[in-house]
Amino acid sequence: MIEILDTTLRDGTQGQAVSLSSDDKVAIARRLSAFGVPLVEGGWPGSNPKDAEFFARMRGVDLGRTRLVAFGSTRRKGLRPHDDASVQAMLGAHTPVVTVVAKSWDFHVTEALEVSLEENLRMIEETYAYLVSQGRRVIHDAEHFFDGFKANRGYALATLEAAVRGGSDTLCLCDTNGGSLPEEVAEITRAVVEAFPGVRVGIHPHNDGELAVANALAAVRAGATHVQGTVNGYGERCGNLNLTSTIPNLILKCGLELQGISREKLAELREVSHYVDERANLTPNIRAPYVGDAAFAHKGGIHVSAVLKNPRTYEHVEPEAVGNTRRVLVSDLSGRSNLLAKLAEAGVQVPKETAGALLEEVKQLEHAGYSFEGAEASFYLLAHRLRGGKLPFELMGFSVFMHANDDRPDTPTWAEATVRVKVGESVQHTAGESKFGPVSALDVAFRKAVQAFYPEIGEIELSDYKMRILSGQESGTSSGVRVVIEMHRAGERWTTVGASRNSLEASLKALTDGYAYALVKAQPAPQD
Amino acid sequence: MIEILDTTLRDGTQGQAVSLSSDDKVAIARRLSAFGVPLVEGGWPGSNPKDAEFFARMRGVDLGRTRLVAFGSTRRKGLRPHDDASVQAMLGAHTPVVTVVAKSWDFHVTEALEVSLEENLRMIEETYAYLVSQGRRVIHDAEHFFDGFKANRGYALATLEAAVRGGSDTLCLCDTNGGSLPEEVAEITRAVVEAFPGVRVGIHPHNDGELAVANALAAVRAGATHVQGTVNGYGERCGNLNLTSTIPNLILKCGLELQGISREKLAELREVSHYVDERANLTPNIRAPYVGDAAFAHKGGIHVSAVLKNPRTYEHVEPEAVGNTRRVLVSDLSGRSNLLAKLAEAGVQVPKETAGALLEEVKQLEHAGYSFEGAEASFYLLAHRLRGGKLPFELMGFSVFMHANDDRPDTPTWAEATVRVKVGESVQHTAGESKFGPVSALDVAFRKAVQAFYPEIGEIELSDYKMRILSGQESGTSSGVRVVIEMHRAGERWTTVGASRNSLEASLKALTDGYAYALVKAQPAPQD
Repeated sequence: MIEILDTTLRDGTQGQAVSLSSDDKVAIARRLSAFGVPLVEGGWPGSNPKDAEFFARMRGVDLGRTRLVAFGSTRRKGLRPHDDASVQAMLGAHTPVVTVVAKSWDFHVTEALEVSLEENLRMIEETYAYLVSQGRRVIHDAEHFFDGFKANRGYALATLEAAVRGGSDTLCLCDTNGGSLPEEVAEITRAVVEAFPGVRVGIHPHNDGELAVANALAAVRAGATHVQGTVNGYGERCGNLNLTSTIPNLILKCGLELQGISREKLAELREVSHYVDERANLTPNIRAPYVGDAAFAHKGGIHVSAVLKNPRTYEHVEPEAVGNTRRVLVSDLSGRSNLLAKLAEAGVQVPKETAGALLEEVKQLEHAGYSFEGAEASFYLLAHRLRGGKLPFELMGFSVFMHANDDRPDTPTWAEATVRVKVGESVQHTAGESKFGPVSALDVAFRKAVQAFYPEIGEIELSDYKMRILSGQESGTSSGVRVVIEMHRAGERWTTVGASRNSLEASLKALTDGYAYALVKAQPAPQD
Repeated sequence: MIEILDTTLRDGTQGQAVSLSSDDKVAIARRLSAFGVPLVEGGWPGSNPKDAEFFARMRGVDLGRTRLVAFGSTRRKGLRPHDDASVQAMLGAHTPVVTVVAKSWDFHVTEALEVSLEENLRMIEETYAYLVSQGRRVIHDAEHFFDGFKANRGYALATLEAAVRGGSDTLCLCDTNGGSLPEEVAEITRAVVEAFPGVRVGIHPHNDGELAVANALAAVRAGATHVQGTVNGYGERCGNLNLTSTIPNLILKCGLELQGISREKLAELREVSHYVDERANLTPNIRAPYVGDAAFAHKGGIHVSAVLKNPRTYEHVEPEAVGNTRRVLVSDLSGRSNLLAKLAEAGVQVPKETAGALLEEVKQLEHAGYSFEGAEASFYLLAHRLRGGKLPFELMGFSVFMHANDDRPDTPTWAEATVRVKVGESVQHTAGESKFGPVSALDVAFRKAVQAFYPEIGEIELSDYKMRILSGQESGTSSGVRVVIEMHRAGERWTTVGASRNSLEASLKALTDGYAYALVKAQPAPQD
């Protein structure tokens, strides 16, 4: 039975561009608990007042069978653990479990910590004995264990002995610099497992050699039963062990049982991954194994025709097992079978003659900067239009005016927009304003024009908006841009794309496609 | 001596969001050749007219010691190779080497290819014998070899025997579905190496289990000497083997020699990786091992102080070995040592009293949506201002007007902007217009206001512009946004950030910071 410790909220937040508010951390802890993760490390209360605040908030939160873990380090040199503020802060988190990082590499003890090798051993044993006396389970995080073992095997093992003497029940071997190879990890883990019978051994890899997942599996094969990592592999430098890949590998590939996370629970994996990205405001990695949008996406013509005959031909596991779905991509590499599969997926029936015209138009639009691979709602509208389907409205023109004055407090920042939209036979000319800028003002004016005819667009909300310059053209703000917009209504989400040399036009194209898609989808499909 | 085959231009382009023009492909082939890659696979001329065009263009290009490779498949059933259009297209590419994909999994032969097991063996042997008779070196890509070996070991080995009888000198074992584990790859590769003494064995992994790099290393340890992958791991689904991680692992970690790519050449690795991303218009992965911006970036307070004492403490290799550099990140997790290191890096000396105020302001701005981790020029300006440095100008206000009419051809799309900028003691009020949208019009007006005083801003160009909604606030276009801008002048690049609930304000903040940074940096630093 393997025990997972998730450290997204602690080591994960050391990652570049990873920043979580206290609200985010509470929400993620709840989500991980619902997924079944047995140990959730929440932060380092001794180093960071935000983390101390998080633990205070968590005292009122029921995490069910999940145990919350506080992180800290061994006492400072020359102090008693009772007198060490950082050790007291760990206790002040009131968690049943603590992870304590300690040095195992002799070079680090003398160079970074600047204490004697003997004092380091005392720091470990005394800190743990005190924490255990206060009712805590102590997980020993052996920093730089693999490098330390290679440099001075005897001393590295002596630090583990000190940890066990102090009362730690889990010796977690950390590949702190992330550069170890799987065969080294296997060999050294096996040596530790043999040297400490009856003690739980763990692994904490980093991904600096793109080998973290392999290192975790190698340690588990060598006898480790405790695995530390983060959702989506967040973490310092190249990241921590990616649990989102490791958990399905352990269950589906290695056939192992995980405490708290059953095979059925795996079907939530993609949702957990995206939930954490959403909370961290990070764009999900489309290529992420198991959970990425592309993980079961097929683009090459022969792959597509084979996978439609039998999914086993090009898929290593069932996408449904991890909550993902099979997707067929449309692009200029596409053959006719991709396109037809994609259309069938979208529920659009297109006569074979039209398929050629559609493929041609996709190629031309992609050349102009569009990308339909992620923007399935725009692709749907394109197919709808080519087969003679009507669109609910047509944008005829727009104007925007915007004003900002730092030195004239009587005329604050505001944007005003007008649009002319043809709905049915009438042309609506409406105005809108917003303090949030021109796209927002256009959105207000546009909704005003259309909502009288289609009140349901009032329920639609924007969930994401991204703009990016297209390279290989003119430089800077004078280049073409691509805008990708995601909208949602009652749990349904869809994505549209707009490209133009003019950024507002690209934005409006994606925006109006988003509304059009929702309205078209709600109508019964026209019959051929 | 390990031989690398790069298939970025063929298998890499099967990846979602990867799209390369014929120009891009020629440029990438040249760059890979300069890096020393011995084999560059350029495309599949039999499946794609764009690829045939690429090979035609390459006939006039000197790649030095690099050999170009065309990809194809075995002849169709019942045809002679001479009469098979796809085999002829491979020959028509006029490359010295060809890679031919063939089935090795019995299930695939009967299910996907729909031929008898015996006919598949004849297809392999006859195709290779014909290609060898035409002077080609034939690399056998054994599709689904690991799955095939597990399903029917005898038949999988029989396909390799057919390849060797036909004259192939390299048996490349493909983990096509990407789901194999390193120990399986090691065991099966070892079996093939032993069964075919004197024949080169290769490995072609995919990353569906996040184990591609480990699988390549496992195969090499088992005797493989030919490795197929792509720059940055581009490829279908979760990607192909990432050569950008594998090459330094083989050289620096495993101590192996690579044909054509010396240890010194490794210093170009980061540049090659970014060059290919740039050509493919993909944002580099900051967390990429070895080459990513974050690969040697330190954020946690204790890591930073230790790494400044001795880099070995938290780095697995020297960043310079792969052309990367050490970076210290500023964020609300930062301690004083990060901040001081960062200031020293930026060449700004700040009295200790000011450091506290700066840290406070960084935290407040990050709370408001700024992120300084990538925007070092904005951070520099912040420090400059807090230590009493002057800024070259001050933006007082702006207005924008924009108009677009699909139905009135006499009034096409245009944007007009005015700005009021204080430069020295005078306030400039200028106007600009642009067909590219409001930010571009503001840029024109702003340059007009400042250029009379600082003509050098005429040399500055924008290289990238990204906008993103900040989550956790109001939804959609009414949320706050963050804009990140990159500028360059004569090879120097710098990045700035702006955040605001108003998208144009955020853009202008990042834009004016970019110009201010260039002007401030050019002046001698004021003395304390």
